[in-house]
Amino acid sequence: MELPEPVNITTLPETPLESGHLNHNDFPWVDQGWGIEAKILQVCDVTGSWIIMNRFAPGTQLPTHRHSGVVKAYTLQGKWGYLESDFTATAGSIIMEPANTAHTLKVADDAGEPTVVFFTIEGSLVNYTEDGTIWGISDGHTQLAEYIRLGKEQGHDISAESIL
Amino acid sequence: MELPEPVNITTLPETPLESGHLNHNDFPWVDQGWGIEAKILQVCDVTGSWIIMNRFAPGTQLPTHRHSGVVKAYTLQGKWGYLESDFTATAGSIIMEPANTAHTLKVADDAGEPTVVFFTIEGSLVNYTEDGTIWGISDGHTQLAEYIRLGKEQGHDISAESIL
Amino acid sequence: MELPEPVNITTLPETPLESGHLNHNDFPWVDQGWGIEAKILQVCDVTGSWIIMNRFAPGTQLPTHRHSGVVKAYTLQGKWGYLESDFTATAGSIIMEPANTAHTLKVADDAGEPTVVFFTIEGSLVNYTEDGTIWGISDGHTQLAEYIRLGKEQGHDISAESIL
Amino acid sequence: MELPEPVNITTLPETPLESGHLNHNDFPWVDQGWGIEAKILQVCDVTGSWIIMNRFAPGTQLPTHRHSGVVKAYTLQGKWGYLESDFTATAGSIIMEPANTAHTLKVADDAGEPTVVFFTIEGSLVNYTEDGTIWGISDGHTQLAEYIRLGKEQGHDISAESIL
Repeated sequence: MELPEPVNITTLPETPLESGHLNHNDFPWVDQGWGIEAKILQVCDVTGSWIIMNRFAPGTQLPTHRHSGVVKAYTLQGKWGYLESDFTATAGSIIMEPANTAHTLKVADDAGEPTVVFFTIEGSLVNYTEDGTIWGISDGHTQLAEYIRLGKEQGHDISAESIL
Repeated sequence: MELPEPVNITTLPETPLESGHLNHNDFPWVDQGWGIEAKILQVCDVTGSWIIMNRFAPGTQLPTHRHSGVVKAYTLQGKWGYLESDFTATAGSIIMEPANTAHTLKVADDAGEPTVVFFTIEGSLVNYTEDGTIWGISDGHTQLAEYIRLGKEQGHDISAESIL
Repeated sequence: MELPEPVNITTLPETPLESGHLNHNDFPWVDQGWGIEAKILQVCDVTGSWIIMNRFAPGTQLPTHRHSGVVKAYTLQGKWGYLESDFTATAGSIIMEPANTAHTLKVADDAGEPTVVFFTIEGSLVNYTEDGTIWGISDGHTQLAEYIRLGKEQGHDISAESIL
Repeated sequence: MELPEPVNITTLPETPLESGHLNHNDFPWVDQGWGIEAKILQVCDVTGSWIIMNRFAPGTQLPTHRHSGVVKAYTLQGKWGYLESDFTATAGSIIMEPANTAHTLKVADDAGEPTVVFFTIEGSLVNYTEDGTIWGISDGHTQLAEYIRLGKEQGHDISAESIL
């Protein structure tokens, strides 16, 4: 088999794409009630992937939810886990949640400091009430809208243009 | 239009999937030479997505490389950027690199401490020499094999089974 | 900069992974009512991506739905579109739907033959009633369970193990 | 636990996103030599995912290649497979290739008609020579550039703007 010229990337592109950058410290924590603060820092208009950082008060418990895509998380500080799992996440913990994972996030009562987590999420969350029926659905776009709305109520000037 | 019974996830699954968890502090930094230390903490056998953490010495410069998929990065400490971009990443910086981004990672000479970054990567990297021709290609699987090989040489017992 | 040995895939892996294969003609169309027949042919336990083939009767209209991830579709035969869009898809049509796209699938009344479409889907669908409130949610896993359940009712022996 | 207002997508978005549409019959087959014709119909600037349709002459064999991301394929007509696998793909065949799959595409000598396949691909391909060393690398962007370049040489007016 005699090989023709390959379709090739053996040389660098002449006009490389730019990476996006922000520092989350330039963005406000917005209080969502319930012991939850959040920053929405990236939402992809093509795939729906998003980045959320959360700061949870000790003892915080979220409604049980189910994911439609993969989640990867890095814990910066604090102490938390899922009621359905037996691990305890602390600073340096990495969590990988396959699509269709369902769980109840619980911050340890004795966390001793706010729990801060960096999440990359694909797709949506379905939230359930305690009796197992549906309560609501959110995704990167709805979370971003809520981040802007609550942020403005709380005196912060947040715009969709400033995130990644 | 009269609606039949929906195909539905309005109730929780009876047997929810488990999330994977590890703490990167339980894994050794492996010296790759050149001012680079690494930990490979997740590799997906379906999509090829992977998680790598790097610790770079001040002044470290990597070969120019190009990505075949999306990269998202969180900076834990230090000071770094890409020669082709004008941002400076420090603790709390989030970087989003679209597929086909090509760049040269450079750690600031005056970083003052090791630079530590958490990366989630889709797909492979093509590395180039300074004259722009191809030098090598790596992805999550090759990086994991290298992490295990170098780790063993450096006295660490690392296995593919213990990562996510 | 003197380059060390690259981490490299310049040689072939010794134990390459296998591709999965099936022919959809070996799987039954299952009647979901409402002019809709379906085959669920792949569901990924990691990402939640899935492949569905649909055969729609002329004139079929689905409930308005919204996607949490990307959809790509190839039309094999027939004539269809979305009420919210102005294209008409026929044999050879390719459709690309970004995450968060919401639309109402309508098969042309004069399609003249069943409309057959191959869909690759990331994540879930939220279905709405005509007054815009939520009616139900489905994803690859729920659709597969429904495909198996309805298939058995209709005399077909379908198992999750036989799909990709 | 008293639930506050959910962040929610229980109502339809007011300004839904548009889906992209094209019919591949409106795009020319471009001869790449070697028994291969191709159309590049979608390239994502964020994720690097792409859609390629190929028409292969009976007996065509491609260089062995390795993928950095997932591939899903639908066979429209013809007869083909991989030298490393034991399936034979014909009209209606669906193939799912995990990331890092490496294989040698071979069209049956007795295919009796051109083999036409619809591929959705994540990321890049590394192509090898027969002795197992690297020959070239391609991805959606390089394939698109080549489709336009060869297309113009062959008298077709193709532009990147007209694909998805």
